[in-house]
Amino acid sequence: MQRAAQSVQLRQLASAVKKGDRVALARAITLAENDPSRAAALLAQVGPPGRAFVVGVTGPPGTGKSSLVDRLIGSYRQKGFRVGVIAIDPTSPITGGALLGDRVRMTRHAEDRSVFIRSMASRGWSGGLSRATTQVIRLMDAAGFDIVLLETVGIGQSDIEVVGVSHAVLVVLMPGLGDEIQVSKAGLMEVGDVYVVNKSDLEGADLMVVSLLSLFRGAPRSPPVLKVSALSGDGVDRLQEAIERLRSGFAAGDVALRLKSIRGMIIETARGTAMERLATLSDSSASELALRVMDGKITLEGAAARLAR
Amino acid sequence: MQRAAQSVQLRQLASAVKKGDRVALARAITLAENDPSRAAALLAQVGPPGRAFVVGVTGPPGTGKSSLVDRLIGSYRQKGFRVGVIAIDPTSPITGGALLGDRVRMTRHAEDRSVFIRSMASRGWSGGLSRATTQVIRLMDAAGFDIVLLETVGIGQSDIEVVGVSHAVLVVLMPGLGDEIQVSKAGLMEVGDVYVVNKSDLEGADLMVVSLLSLFRGAPRSPPVLKVSALSGDGVDRLQEAIERLRSGFAAGDVALRLKSIRGMIIETARGTAMERLATLSDSSASELALRVMDGKITLEGAAARLAR
Repeated sequence: MQRAAQSVQLRQLASAVKKGDRVALARAITLAENDPSRAAALLAQVGPPGRAFVVGVTGPPGTGKSSLVDRLIGSYRQKGFRVGVIAIDPTSPITGGALLGDRVRMTRHAEDRSVFIRSMASRGWSGGLSRATTQVIRLMDAAGFDIVLLETVGIGQSDIEVVGVSHAVLVVLMPGLGDEIQVSKAGLMEVGDVYVVNKSDLEGADLMVVSLLSLFRGAPRSPPVLKVSALSGDGVDRLQEAIERLRSGFAAGDVALRLKSIRGMIIETARGTAMERLATLSDSSASELALRVMDGKITLEGAAARLAR
Repeated sequence: MQRAAQSVQLRQLASAVKKGDRVALARAITLAENDPSRAAALLAQVGPPGRAFVVGVTGPPGTGKSSLVDRLIGSYRQKGFRVGVIAIDPTSPITGGALLGDRVRMTRHAEDRSVFIRSMASRGWSGGLSRATTQVIRLMDAAGFDIVLLETVGIGQSDIEVVGVSHAVLVVLMPGLGDEIQVSKAGLMEVGDVYVVNKSDLEGADLMVVSLLSLFRGAPRSPPVLKVSALSGDGVDRLQEAIERLRSGFAAGDVALRLKSIRGMIIETARGTAMERLATLSDSSASELALRVMDGKITLEGAAARLAR
């Protein structure tokens, strides 16, 4: 039976991933990206999320998130941690694919067997990203990575997803760029566990720190605000210590934090699955429905209800 | 019967909206924000989208979208157009609501009976925004506005939605800020019908224009790239002319453009409705499901399927 053979293959793949086999992990990730139902069957073999501490890295475009992630990889490697990195990249039909500039900066870790870096294309927001990203986190977790750094493009739905599935969220900012407005406008005020003012060598870094601190004055919480230069490495150690403080509860078995992330993963998987289904339906039916709405034959709400059903 | 009375009320409200009654429009918009099912019943009375040309205004935070919208209001008012504005604002639990700074700049139009400005809070991305925004566009359309300017925060899901429901999309950028990277990284390359380099008085404006033009060189399309200063008003007329060129086909009865927007509205309403439903379910069931996933009693995919069903 082909089905039985597939099931054996998936079991073998799951077992190889759990042994930390890099080739198996790469194959499993490709499955998560391209074949939702087989990925689900694979993950059922892999078991619930467990060891990996997931750090979301978000913030506006151009603030140097990738360089910072690169520094954090180095910092965690020095302490002997195994580090997985998921970088969410937009796919552009015009430029023909993910932008490789930032990824290239990370290649100095490409030879390190204890580092696994994967770029994922955002593919026109069909919802597949939410589901696939969650699955890739779980695969890296199963493969024994201690830390998973999840870097977003700093714009779009992916930033929201990151907050749900991560155990800790770094919001990366830089001097200038509208100062506190960039934080509050972008809805970043609520989501950060640590705020990083990157490019601290630029003018205005201290002002940015002060702006951030004043934003949080009187607020129910006051997350740490750290100046960092990913370029020179200044402040990276202190940032890593801040992350480690957040991780300590998790490592000691904090059930609430673990549950929060699993809850986020369930919601993102559900959301992604629903959106994938809707995107497929929209491709085939939405134009026909639009014609009937324009002609007044059905209401727009009626058409939407048919799609959503 | 209460139900019959409600139905009469909705019919009266729909009729008043269609006569351009501002109080009725405000009430109808509040309904769209707070009561999806009554809003749907109201919109069924209002009929399919018709006259209003919907212009999405998107781009990274801090590029001056609100000031530009303010200029466009003035420019369109001079020509006798009636202008509706929808500004999507993030709600911050810490700052306690929408950021009013930008809105304040528009208040010089608040006394003008032919301008209607409404801020909508993004409310934690529950999907309600997609549905409600679409409905508010349709209400402004029914109330006889010629142009609806739909301004996003420049980050998040709302920017994607804007593209689907608009007849034309302005991408607003500014000098510096990573130059072409801000465009391609943010997935803005594909969505703009006009590219605006705002703050043209700043150094680097010409460089930014050149970067944009080179990005589109060899691409299947080459949208106009315009330098504008919303501050001084320089270039606003040329921008309005560019929008008018896009609107001319629509005004002449271009069915394809009309269908594209209706199609987008159907999809966003369906997406929004599905997300609202999922958010409600998530609140009540996701934590319990997460507990069972952590204990290994069900798989994460199984839990997600239950939510999505």
